[in-house]
Amino acid sequence: MSWVTAANAALLTDLYELTMAASYHSRDMRTEATFDLFVRELPARRNFLVVCGVEQALQYLSELHFDDDALTYLRSLGMFRSSFLDYLADLRFSGEVWAMSEGEVAFAREPLMRVTAPLIEAQIVETFLLNCVTFQTMVASKAARVSLAAGATKFFDFSLRRDHGADAGLKAARASFIAGASATSNVLAGKMFGIPVSGTMAHSYVMAFPTEEDAFRAYAHDFPEQAVLLIDTFDVAQGAERAVSVARELASEGITLRGVRIDSGDLPRLARRVRDILDEAGFSELQIILSGDLDEYRVKEMLDAGVPVDVFGIGTQMGTSADSPFLGGVYKLVAEGGVPKVKLSTGKVTLPGLKQIYRSYDGDHIAHDLIALEGETVDETVPLLRRVMHQGRRVSESEPLNVVRERCLSSLARLPDPLRELTESSDYPVHLSSELSALAKKAEEGLVVQSG
Amino acid sequence: MSWVTAANAALLTDLYELTMAASYHSRDMRTEATFDLFVRELPARRNFLVVCGVEQALQYLSELHFDDDALTYLRSLGMFRSSFLDYLADLRFSGEVWAMSEGEVAFAREPLMRVTAPLIEAQIVETFLLNCVTFQTMVASKAARVSLAAGATKFFDFSLRRDHGADAGLKAARASFIAGASATSNVLAGKMFGIPVSGTMAHSYVMAFPTEEDAFRAYAHDFPEQAVLLIDTFDVAQGAERAVSVARELASEGITLRGVRIDSGDLPRLARRVRDILDEAGFSELQIILSGDLDEYRVKEMLDAGVPVDVFGIGTQMGTSADSPFLGGVYKLVAEGGVPKVKLSTGKVTLPGLKQIYRSYDGDHIAHDLIALEGETVDETVPLLRRVMHQGRRVSESEPLNVVRERCLSSLARLPDPLRELTESSDYPVHLSSELSALAKKAEEGLVVQSG
Repeated sequence: MSWVTAANAALLTDLYELTMAASYHSRDMRTEATFDLFVRELPARRNFLVVCGVEQALQYLSELHFDDDALTYLRSLGMFRSSFLDYLADLRFSGEVWAMSEGEVAFAREPLMRVTAPLIEAQIVETFLLNCVTFQTMVASKAARVSLAAGATKFFDFSLRRDHGADAGLKAARASFIAGASATSNVLAGKMFGIPVSGTMAHSYVMAFPTEEDAFRAYAHDFPEQAVLLIDTFDVAQGAERAVSVARELASEGITLRGVRIDSGDLPRLARRVRDILDEAGFSELQIILSGDLDEYRVKEMLDAGVPVDVFGIGTQMGTSADSPFLGGVYKLVAEGGVPKVKLSTGKVTLPGLKQIYRSYDGDHIAHDLIALEGETVDETVPLLRRVMHQGRRVSESEPLNVVRERCLSSLARLPDPLRELTESSDYPVHLSSELSALAKKAEEGLVVQSG
Repeated sequence: MSWVTAANAALLTDLYELTMAASYHSRDMRTEATFDLFVRELPARRNFLVVCGVEQALQYLSELHFDDDALTYLRSLGMFRSSFLDYLADLRFSGEVWAMSEGEVAFAREPLMRVTAPLIEAQIVETFLLNCVTFQTMVASKAARVSLAAGATKFFDFSLRRDHGADAGLKAARASFIAGASATSNVLAGKMFGIPVSGTMAHSYVMAFPTEEDAFRAYAHDFPEQAVLLIDTFDVAQGAERAVSVARELASEGITLRGVRIDSGDLPRLARRVRDILDEAGFSELQIILSGDLDEYRVKEMLDAGVPVDVFGIGTQMGTSADSPFLGGVYKLVAEGGVPKVKLSTGKVTLPGLKQIYRSYDGDHIAHDLIALEGETVDETVPLLRRVMHQGRRVSESEPLNVVRERCLSSLARLPDPLRELTESSDYPVHLSSELSALAKKAEEGLVVQSG
């Protein structure tokens, strides 16, 4: 099949990145350019973002190259000169990258990533970086809402079958784990990222046996201690009774079930009914797992209503960020040859220059952010942008995913209360430093930008 | 980086597919099972689906295997017996697959794909097939709406930066090309699928030159005959005037521009203004390309209003199917050992048995579909499900993408007029044959299903 891999990822780009690069090359335009990757405005219903995808972006930059196959294809287009294709053959990313840490919360206008490199290199990576960082940040931000709604109750990622293709499945599992999911159903994501995997049976399993009870009994024998029985193939209450009867049988063999799953119907009502059945039978340790078209709103609604549930299985809505299925990340030129430079077109102002973000705390909570020019003297002391790549090499090892996850959970815990709500809150204060404000004002007046 | 490839795709599955398989294996349950992949209900605002992703699904089935790396990981989970892992090591898909042709229109309840294989094989491929076929069908169905709205006006796929990861970018380009896009900005999709690629410059290109005119002149020299100038970096009308002045200069050198692109602002008003400027200057052959948050509604609105436009660049909304970002495809057991068998739980009835779909025509338009049992004698004569895999091997070569695209455009042309509208239409008639109706009724009464 046709897969994206390190060998061909350089071509996973918009053609215009290459035509612009070819033009820069033919004119020997090698000035150093700085681009910011950021989000102009938070999407509806989002009070914050969770940074995600920086790791994959850095891997891409580290591995970037055009192989013979890629060059042969580009030559076949008949639009590029040989000298440019020769240049591409030798191209490696040699730039410097600053980024916010994965798992950190971020807000509109804050650079999630800043790339400084010779113009061609900085330009050519735009499309991939946007695809990589904005998608994963979108899913992590959605999953963080599920995480806040679920509180102490666990949730698992069940999204793979509805994610947008294969790569999205992997990245959605990783992003949701970072934001607080305890496990994923996605086996390959488990293998690649070390995420705990979870899953038991589908309705087809129950139907493959002469009776529901036979199916339960068989599964529990094959996966003792781990069995979660799916009890809604026929009738949920009856399914729960059968689970109890199998649990009794197995108890005599020393086998314990883990729980039952309900995947359809009126979940709050069914969960209560099933909890009663299990408790009355003396199986109060059996867990109830609920799944089926759940999102943060339904999770909160059920927990607020005291529905007895031990784990939520969250799929489609989280993996596709269905209520806001894209994040308008942009990658904008902010400096060239060290000189701040921004686009001036109507309504879409970009903050000029090389910047740093500082975060201030008020007790246990974050209080406000300050975006300042790099090197500007400010009172704030906790910078959020770290240098992660220097001269094309990563400055440090990849972070273990658990470290990223801990950072995320701790950041979510330190959000001001209104931002932790599922409803849209008033904006978190993100201030501009005096020097940046002055520069932005000049830019608006056309004084910084050199062209026009 | 961590990529999905043919070597590890077998693990891109929900864990429960493997636990169920292990249980079937330990019990030597090798009966032949048949699963239908279908959509129970069309999403809001969709009058039809366009089948897409079958090609990738067949490639996956052809290549399916668990390599040592996969088996080592599965062993490390401590939940699978060695005998099962040995079985997986030798597993190849040996089943039979029937499918609707890519590019064909389809409706709710119609099997897009039918898989018959030994139970374990048929089960284990569920997650991947759903991920693969429903995502691509969703995007092709969205792109078909853009195609219907655009009519004779061309549109290009510009979605890569907002698609959900790398694989989604490839598949969105392919799906939208099938549904009528003339080109994609995605270079790798161009290479892999032979789709024409298109793209010129970003705002950063214009900003990299001392003046906008310098940028236009440089680009036109570097890409003579192909240059589309982006004229909204500063002021669109001024940009158009500058494009005219560069066009005049270049005309004296025998170089012709292709057109101009407007990517922001009030597109209808700006396009009219720019058309006037170009026409008055004698450059009526210069094309106008419009882009920036467009979807089928805005396309239709602009064309209905007579906005002068030659090409639409469609990105985010199409690549993410943003107004309906998931398609609830399911993969349901419909027969076992040749015996029709379906799940009975509340409200979600699956049509039992092995089925064929027949399409009837009324003049140039499709009139109704009939879902019948396979082998049932019916009056209708045009079957839609073709056998595409037999004993694990593909029955025919992959279809050239242009053939699939032609099929799609011809199918869209034969839709009844109400279904071609962007508003939700009354349902297209999909009938059940007498034998299938009788069987479905029996199933509802619990007479076909063997368990319970």
